Amino acid sequence: MIELSANRYGKAAIRLVRVDRDATPHRVRDLTIAIALEGDFAAAHTDGDNANVIATDTMKNTAYAFGVEHLTGSIEAYAAALASHFLGFGQVARATVNVREHVWRSIDVAGAPATDALVRSGEGTRLATVAATRGEITVEAGVEDLVVMKTTRSGFTGFPRDRYTTLPGADDRLMATQVTAVWRYGAPDIDFDATWQAVSGTLLEVFAEHDSPSVQTSIWIMANAMLERHEEVDEVRMVLPNLHHWLVDLAPFGIDNDRQVYVATTEPHGLIEATVRRGEV
Amino acid sequence: MIELSANRYGKAAIRLVRVDRDATPHRVRDLTIAIALEGDFAAAHTDGDNANVIATDTMKNTAYAFGVEHLTGSIEAYAAALASHFLGFGQVARATVNVREHVWRSIDVAGAPATDALVRSGEGTRLATVAATRGEITVEAGVEDLVVMKTTRSGFTGFPRDRYTTLPGADDRLMATQVTAVWRYGAPDIDFDATWQAVSGTLLEVFAEHDSPSVQTSIWIMANAMLERHEEVDEVRMVLPNLHHWLVDLAPFGIDNDRQVYVATTEPHGLIEATVRRGEV
Amino acid sequence: MIELSANRYGKAAIRLVRVDRDATPHRVRDLTIAIALEGDFAAAHTDGDNANVIATDTMKNTAYAFGVEHLTGSIEAYAAALASHFLGFGQVARATVNVREHVWRSIDVAGAPATDALVRSGEGTRLATVAATRGEITVEAGVEDLVVMKTTRSGFTGFPRDRYTTLPGADDRLMATQVTAVWRYGAPDIDFDATWQAVSGTLLEVFAEHDSPSVQTSIWIMANAMLERHEEVDEVRMVLPNLHHWLVDLAPFGIDNDRQVYVATTEPHGLIEATVRRGEV
Amino acid sequence: MIELSANRYGKAAIRLVRVDRDATPHRVRDLTIAIALEGDFAAAHTDGDNANVIATDTMKNTAYAFGVEHLTGSIEAYAAALASHFLGFGQVARATVNVREHVWRSIDVAGAPATDALVRSGEGTRLATVAATRGEITVEAGVEDLVVMKTTRSGFTGFPRDRYTTLPGADDRLMATQVTAVWRYGAPDIDFDATWQAVSGTLLEVFAEHDSPSVQTSIWIMANAMLERHEEVDEVRMVLPNLHHWLVDLAPFGIDNDRQVYVATTEPHGLIEATVRRGEV
Repeated sequence: MIELSANRYGKAAIRLVRVDRDATPHRVRDLTIAIALEGDFAAAHTDGDNANVIATDTMKNTAYAFGVEHLTGSIEAYAAALASHFLGFGQVARATVNVREHVWRSIDVAGAPATDALVRSGEGTRLATVAATRGEITVEAGVEDLVVMKTTRSGFTGFPRDRYTTLPGADDRLMATQVTAVWRYGAPDIDFDATWQAVSGTLLEVFAEHDSPSVQTSIWIMANAMLERHEEVDEVRMVLPNLHHWLVDLAPFGIDNDRQVYVATTEPHGLIEATVRRGEV
Repeated sequence: MIELSANRYGKAAIRLVRVDRDATPHRVRDLTIAIALEGDFAAAHTDGDNANVIATDTMKNTAYAFGVEHLTGSIEAYAAALASHFLGFGQVARATVNVREHVWRSIDVAGAPATDALVRSGEGTRLATVAATRGEITVEAGVEDLVVMKTTRSGFTGFPRDRYTTLPGADDRLMATQVTAVWRYGAPDIDFDATWQAVSGTLLEVFAEHDSPSVQTSIWIMANAMLERHEEVDEVRMVLPNLHHWLVDLAPFGIDNDRQVYVATTEPHGLIEATVRRGEV
Repeated sequence: MIELSANRYGKAAIRLVRVDRDATPHRVRDLTIAIALEGDFAAAHTDGDNANVIATDTMKNTAYAFGVEHLTGSIEAYAAALASHFLGFGQVARATVNVREHVWRSIDVAGAPATDALVRSGEGTRLATVAATRGEITVEAGVEDLVVMKTTRSGFTGFPRDRYTTLPGADDRLMATQVTAVWRYGAPDIDFDATWQAVSGTLLEVFAEHDSPSVQTSIWIMANAMLERHEEVDEVRMVLPNLHHWLVDLAPFGIDNDRQVYVATTEPHGLIEATVRRGEV
Repeated sequence: MIELSANRYGKAAIRLVRVDRDATPHRVRDLTIAIALEGDFAAAHTDGDNANVIATDTMKNTAYAFGVEHLTGSIEAYAAALASHFLGFGQVARATVNVREHVWRSIDVAGAPATDALVRSGEGTRLATVAATRGEITVEAGVEDLVVMKTTRSGFTGFPRDRYTTLPGADDRLMATQVTAVWRYGAPDIDFDATWQAVSGTLLEVFAEHDSPSVQTSIWIMANAMLERHEEVDEVRMVLPNLHHWLVDLAPFGIDNDRQVYVATTEPHGLIEATVRRGEV
């Protein structure tokens, strides 16, 4: 007997830019949206019956239409409005809306921000994911593509050595990573914009300030601070590639390389993942 | 109270090419390998204690060293050997090894395959993932980046219409997708190479042969055939983006476009995911 | 005094798929088209006067409209028809149309090609560029993204050594590259499809058959054969990255690695470019 | 008769990071370097004779070695030192060194820049190219991957209409582009860092301030200002894709969309290229 197990469907890579010219400077929201639905869709699979299948083209249209009335505040609120809308269909048991915001800032002109001209910042993408059922709503926020480096106060020593170990311990190495961090809020009705600024600010500050004996410990220290300083946050999940920078051996050329010149690499890379959360008391 | 929850770490994007010049034509295995470990690693996070942390550089060295002795057969066997090796460390509770194989074929010279020259094929990447604990081993195989198209016998009609629905029903559309399919084997000791050829062959053949009332139904039909024809397979998971091709409206130019000229798009795209499996009798 | 120098404009990344269902199996042309115009466009730059500026949106519409009537033969003929059309505007002095064709092949079903289902091949992209003025037309064809490897019969020795040289000579190395080759035809009215098949076939065969003392010599040998065997070709231009594969040193692990296991790399890479042509007698 | 025409070779994608920990905050130079040589290399092509072929691996080593002694100032000075070094080989007639700098900035901690922690900025990549022969040196600087937007004061009207024109004129559109700009300096010994800051600052400011009747005019206006305000610059070359943002038609849903919600697209895109220079008096 063959049966359908977990399934979901939706529209991904919906590209929406909203411009508010009433604000000074003009406010730009540049979003990539993905919508996914779960529920009573088995007949679409097993019987070719589309009676319950809200077209993904309709999801896209709805995302744009909601861009006018429901994108006046945070991306979390916009995602929640979309999720709530799709729960209005009886066949939908869970709606998940993921929004990635590409950040723009006003161009400086003679020291002041231009009203109507912007440059896209590459310092990370803001994330928001709202997953809603009829009884529950989960709001996650986060950041990805945030590339950071510690030029000192990072090491890796004391690890076990076996037949295949050649890496020397390093008291002082260069550590670089591309942060993906997602945190879950305990409540669905906080000030999402201010909280995101605060939590991601903590992440960056603690990255800068801590001493790192390993990427593993760095995750723990950053996540701890995010939980301790921001009571809105219940759980933090991080995925940190270790983008190795290898000191170049210039001795064959009679040149001393005192932790100055490195080869930047992306392949292969370490990959460290962990979730840190508030536990039961 | 703040606590560490799920965590794992490893090395990703290990690029290994093995050449066997004893074979005629020469055999090339071009692999991208990722290794991830779970187990007794909490102290690395919470105490900065690396005593249990097998360096990811050691994992990379091991992958290359095993490339000589353990890559004589299938990539599944190679992945299993690596997973088993890492379980030899007491602190490791689960080792997961993922291998992606980039396929090359011999260049034709005067109708015969060259002995020592190859061209990389872009028709999909072969996948294998072995996850092992001390008591259990799971072997998955699959394919990704397999881009396929049905020029006819695909439609999408009968879906519900609401205020935001503008898509007309289509009796005969062009359907294109980039297949990711992963299937789980029931046993860890089958002929992995022959079975992969057979299962992925079924996937392609059924894609070609079936009539598709929706991407959802296509997944069901393909996965069913894979399970019915290949008893080694217990479960099939598919992720199919719907890479929309829109018929161009040439009427403004006085030109009839009878399902001939399309705009190929990637953003936005539908995204359909489902798992199909053998159920309890 | 500040003046406008060279300038051109157009539309790029026009994605067009044409399906011919009258053919058996169905024929699919999957194209990415770029159109660029040069001519009397100075006023658009210096005076903000768009009177001569054919909108790039119009170029896109024209590309799709011409997809019905002018894409019945080769992509070179289609590109020439578009170029000729834009020369119909008095302000256009030169029109350049570049077409990249992404190749699809029919899926095999029980040993025979399916009528209406295809898989995209990744073995290179076919190129055609037509540049036309009122007096002259140049037709170039080519291939890009063709990734090939020689497992033996490739070396690199006898190069000069200085203070910064550490590379040992290699009598027998693995050579891999991603071919970009463009060739210019002497006449604008040949059988472009058959000639492309023949010329690119020569490229692949000679790549497979020759002994390579350097990537430089490989270009010369391949280009020579393309010119010698195909009188339609006047000039061949190649750009070959040297995608280094480094033999892994497994001696520290007591393992002999007799040219078997390599690290595949893309950064950094050698980059060899040359043009070979018929000279004056 | 078949002959070798233009040819060059070198090493590309050399990834070098230099850290200066004596500076406060630590200074990071993150570079991607490409080196290309032209000269007496015909025998390598036609005779398989490598006696003149400086190995590209040696070029890479040299780039790293020079990273210690010659990367103390601007990337232009570093590129010039490398080019000069390779001209020390008699067989080299021209050496071209291209450097792309990926910009990092110190992380803010409590309002002050951290000493030893940085975040990579995505606001454009700095470019420098030095091409040197024994008699001449050309220094170009520039920027790429700089994504900018004007939310108003951009239009496109007055263009000609033909059978294939459907685009309505736009008095007030959203204009977005990814700037590639390269400028040539008249002298090889200026303050490259200060000048780059000044010239790229002018580019951004003028982008923000001008009214744009077309992308063509925008190039002219920006390039003019760069030449007028910076006498060090002799020529400016720009390549600007027009990354179209289409206003979404929400009328079918009874929603007024007064230049508020757009679809961001990348395919197809306009592509405008022009060079502006100081002319003869």
